Amino acid sequence: MTYCVGMRLNSGLVFLSDSRSNAGVDHVSTVRKMTVFERRGDRVLVLMCSGNLAITQAVGHLLSEVSRPENLWTVNSMAKGAELVGEAVREVYRRDGPSLQQFGLEFNCSFILGGQIRGEDCRLFNIYSAGNFIEAYAENPYFQIGEFKYGKPIVDRVVSPETPLDVAAKCALISMDSTLKSNISVGMPLDLLVYERDSLMVSKYATITADNAYFNAIRAFWGQELRKTFNQIPNPDWESMPTAESWPVFEQQIRSQDQ
Amino acid sequence: MTYCVGMRLNSGLVFLSDSRSNAGVDHVSTVRKMTVFERRGDRVLVLMCSGNLAITQAVGHLLSEVSRPENLWTVNSMAKGAELVGEAVREVYRRDGPSLQQFGLEFNCSFILGGQIRGEDCRLFNIYSAGNFIEAYAENPYFQIGEFKYGKPIVDRVVSPETPLDVAAKCALISMDSTLKSNISVGMPLDLLVYERDSLMVSKYATITADNAYFNAIRAFWGQELRKTFNQIPNPDWESMPTAESWPVFEQQIRSQDQ
Repeated sequence: MTYCVGMRLNSGLVFLSDSRSNAGVDHVSTVRKMTVFERRGDRVLVLMCSGNLAITQAVGHLLSEVSRPENLWTVNSMAKGAELVGEAVREVYRRDGPSLQQFGLEFNCSFILGGQIRGEDCRLFNIYSAGNFIEAYAENPYFQIGEFKYGKPIVDRVVSPETPLDVAAKCALISMDSTLKSNISVGMPLDLLVYERDSLMVSKYATITADNAYFNAIRAFWGQELRKTFNQIPNPDWESMPTAESWPVFEQQIRSQDQ
Repeated sequence: MTYCVGMRLNSGLVFLSDSRSNAGVDHVSTVRKMTVFERRGDRVLVLMCSGNLAITQAVGHLLSEVSRPENLWTVNSMAKGAELVGEAVREVYRRDGPSLQQFGLEFNCSFILGGQIRGEDCRLFNIYSAGNFIEAYAENPYFQIGEFKYGKPIVDRVVSPETPLDVAAKCALISMDSTLKSNISVGMPLDLLVYERDSLMVSKYATITADNAYFNAIRAFWGQELRKTFNQIPNPDWESMPTAESWPVFEQQIRSQDQ
């Protein structure tokens, strides 16, 4: 599996992806999920993918073919870029879908595409297996793909359009930490990319490996503080809680064989 | 959907369930997911369910039919109890499975059964849709069913067999809070039950409604401290992180159209 998160903030965009790929637990490997299309002064597009690796790589190949009349280097709007990704997904579906179906395999892929093209604002899209897509707006400023549930609560608590880029990047890393902690199908290294609005170049990029001091410090501190906070919370106050007596039907169930 | 968690600790068992049921977002209702079979001095069995409500209720009906030669009031071991739940699931499958299939509906249900029967130790089981089941041991002292991913990281960080009952109950509530925060298909009220090993009676039970002072205090404190801890973490230290240069293939992709 995979975990990727993309955030669209007032000051720019944040992208984070893991790099574990597995076809069953006996075939685990490292595959980068992030691809960057950067032409300084003109465009930065970041594409992250999740799902069947053969499908997502096939889509990637189509999108980076500069011989195609229209590709991510030539489109003049992010929405058109998302449309191209969707079209590439459909092209791969036409080619591979029937064979996958014969083997009982789901046509499973999803993408986050974000970035900025000169003349437009930053934009962020989530493209589905069917090639259709949605865009992130202020009310819902982020998308996740892959194993998203473990890391969702902290993003929900912290991120809003006003969140500064570095704070959002930190949140993405903590969200990734929770996911790494609970799901072995998500793994290091991580690709972290920050794009500052209107810069039209990759602002900050890092490959975070297992020996990254900053990420390891975050992980240790976060885990330790979480346990400390947890310990500060008093144990349940049973006196103040209504018991089963307030629920007659349940009461009957709970006590029916009581002696 | 649903979120239920059951924990098997050295000092006893903890059970927590939500009570939201929904058939699509336009049909949301409150259904208790926990049923208790208590005969003081003899047995306490707690059954929690997740999945298609018609299925789980049908299973519940079969299990509480005292007219059946063997039921959860008569079994003399927890493993036999888990087997009975599995058999009831299979009976419902034989009855309803083909019709559900005609309507394209999955036969989807899962159960946590835990408790103690006189003469045995506390035990905890997870029963699947196919009627098969697994038991919790010290290495993996808890089971979750339903929307389990949001609330898994905190349980992974905190719970071990040595965890005291009230601390484990608190952890279950925080795990539930994360789930409630990120998934509207899980909802209040909650059923919280604590069973002290060898007591052979329900030790503590509470129905936690939306106006429960303790749970609301936990939620507020946890959210606030999480944000405080988050703010204490320094922003990413970009200087210390290796950049794309260390990944030649990626480097090529990231820079290939660079000017």
